[in-house]
Amino acid sequence: MQTELSRTLGVEHAVFGFTPFPAVAAAISRAGGFGVLGAVRYTAPDDLKRDLDWIEAHAGDRPYGLDVVMPAKKVEGVSEADVEAMIPEGHRQFVRDTLAEHGVPELAEGEASGWRITGWMEQVARTQLDVAFDYPIRLLANALGSPPSDVVARAHDRGVLVAALAGSARHARKHQEAGIDIVVAQGYEAGGHTGEIATMVLTPEVVEAVDPLPVLAAGGIGSGQQVAAALTLGAQGVWLGSVWLTTTEADLHSPALTRKLLAAGSGDTVRSRALTGKPARQLRTEWTDAWDDAAGPGTLPMPLQGLLVAEAVSRIQKYEVEPLLGTPVGQIVGRMNSERSVQAVFDDLTRGFERAVDRINRIAGRSGQS
Amino acid sequence: MQTELSRTLGVEHAVFGFTPFPAVAAAISRAGGFGVLGAVRYTAPDDLKRDLDWIEAHAGDRPYGLDVVMPAKKVEGVSEADVEAMIPEGHRQFVRDTLAEHGVPELAEGEASGWRITGWMEQVARTQLDVAFDYPIRLLANALGSPPSDVVARAHDRGVLVAALAGSARHARKHQEAGIDIVVAQGYEAGGHTGEIATMVLTPEVVEAVDPLPVLAAGGIGSGQQVAAALTLGAQGVWLGSVWLTTTEADLHSPALTRKLLAAGSGDTVRSRALTGKPARQLRTEWTDAWDDAAGPGTLPMPLQGLLVAEAVSRIQKYEVEPLLGTPVGQIVGRMNSERSVQAVFDDLTRGFERAVDRINRIAGRSGQS
Repeated sequence: MQTELSRTLGVEHAVFGFTPFPAVAAAISRAGGFGVLGAVRYTAPDDLKRDLDWIEAHAGDRPYGLDVVMPAKKVEGVSEADVEAMIPEGHRQFVRDTLAEHGVPELAEGEASGWRITGWMEQVARTQLDVAFDYPIRLLANALGSPPSDVVARAHDRGVLVAALAGSARHARKHQEAGIDIVVAQGYEAGGHTGEIATMVLTPEVVEAVDPLPVLAAGGIGSGQQVAAALTLGAQGVWLGSVWLTTTEADLHSPALTRKLLAAGSGDTVRSRALTGKPARQLRTEWTDAWDDAAGPGTLPMPLQGLLVAEAVSRIQKYEVEPLLGTPVGQIVGRMNSERSVQAVFDDLTRGFERAVDRINRIAGRSGQS
Repeated sequence: MQTELSRTLGVEHAVFGFTPFPAVAAAISRAGGFGVLGAVRYTAPDDLKRDLDWIEAHAGDRPYGLDVVMPAKKVEGVSEADVEAMIPEGHRQFVRDTLAEHGVPELAEGEASGWRITGWMEQVARTQLDVAFDYPIRLLANALGSPPSDVVARAHDRGVLVAALAGSARHARKHQEAGIDIVVAQGYEAGGHTGEIATMVLTPEVVEAVDPLPVLAAGGIGSGQQVAAALTLGAQGVWLGSVWLTTTEADLHSPALTRKLLAAGSGDTVRSRALTGKPARQLRTEWTDAWDDAAGPGTLPMPLQGLLVAEAVSRIQKYEVEPLLGTPVGQIVGRMNSERSVQAVFDDLTRGFERAVDRINRIAGRSGQS
């Protein structure tokens, strides 16, 4: 699977793997893909430094990248306490009631909540970048909007390509105007923040909109057949996030969550504002149902919702309260049915890709070529 | 584009075109595809007979099929008046108010509403079949659920293949158990009734679920690239409905609606219950907004909603009241940007398909073959 972009980056397969786990990122790069480490959970620079050191030691000199969350709208000068104060008491009570209903225990004294709003603040993302630019990262991806122009310039000075996610052609053109190098077209079926337009329609639309910029297709891709389909649609690579969650290298810290992911079908996700205040696809749970229920208080806008539920989500995860336990994941969860190594996933992707190319050649009457 | 199914049916391209217009159906078959006439609007057997005669005269001896709507749940013994009586007065008032707000004129005395619930009743569908089985149709498709077993048997006795639409693997397996021959996997991005699972995920899932039955991929397909992607995903053909709406052979009876379709982007559709009571993708309009608005009365279940809005929809269409004017259509509407003949659409599909196969061969390093 070689495209102009995969050749530029010096990887064997045009498969980009997004993951919050350093071990998965390194394994993706070792397997011939391009591992991208999600940085949102690193609030302490030393933690990020430690994990990038680990990747350096384990990626076998293969290229890799970093994904940060740098919102287009600045929230500098606003403290977490300021934001906390904007959350209505009725919503706080709803969180307490829903947790109590399911008997979710409190965290122990001094236990931090796993997910903090700080990871979403530009200041924190900039600290992450200060760390990351000391490492030979080849790609910097931004999950929400275009990164600020000085960040783009700083990346380009270091020969780092900049990617940004888009859910529409209009959004993608804005990235192009902001000087980014690669657009990740994130279809409706993808895990995490998504728009309404499905990958089959979105990919060629974005490819056409930002030509000649390379586009990575994201959403609904977990097999070699789907990789082939996405590349057929004009993408220069695929961006996979969900499939790595059930690899043996992933560290979900929750056997119950892994079991839920392995058991879930493609219809068991929902695009809900429950997690961050913006629509994000995730496992459908009694937690998302409670927030999406017309009888409840409804969700708050970003970043209030994320701050409101952060501690609750930590408690649900720590105590593995199954009915409430979820994670961002795409519709492809339906084919994540066994725990496998990253290398095994890659072998499956590449073999499936070759079979899919054989198939389309037969259909096209180019049978001598397959 | 040749698959086992296209060879069985004796068509040049594995492209199935669904359309309510006889001229479009005939043109699709003449162009080397497989035209399928939607029969829901034919309440009078003679009208259907006249249009099938027309297709016979104009399809150039190419094969074609018929699509009926035969709900899984019988509504025999229930008259339209019985159903009318179940509609709350508040909903009727909401229809009147919304039409009045937009100054939509009344129909003239004796003018029939274009869409009647009768077309959805099993008795009417059976009358349509009595007519259709006198013609050499090769395919009978059912849009809602599996057709009754005696209908499947009757089709098979005449060598007619039976197809049914499915939005999930579970739904597709039910069709297989009911003895149908072909599953149309209808993705989230499709026009008309759809589920939540996007084509990229749904197609391979349904292919695997009903193997060895052939599957047609529907939803998000309007270019040769998308045809190639869908066939790469394991489909034995593609099922296209939206793209024909803006062909020169289509007869929408509304220049304003054609203009709206040509201008719409992929983000201008909505999956709404406004038309039939079940989620169906259509142009987003002030009409769908009114029904989807939490401040309104909300939609009624099928078949009440369809009956409730039938006359209103006729009035909106007849008087071309632009803010309210819509039609079922998929996200692919974003690339329907010019009126072209069916043959021109086909030329585009086949050329785009060949280019897409060239592209994937280059990526797969089989460049000598493209």
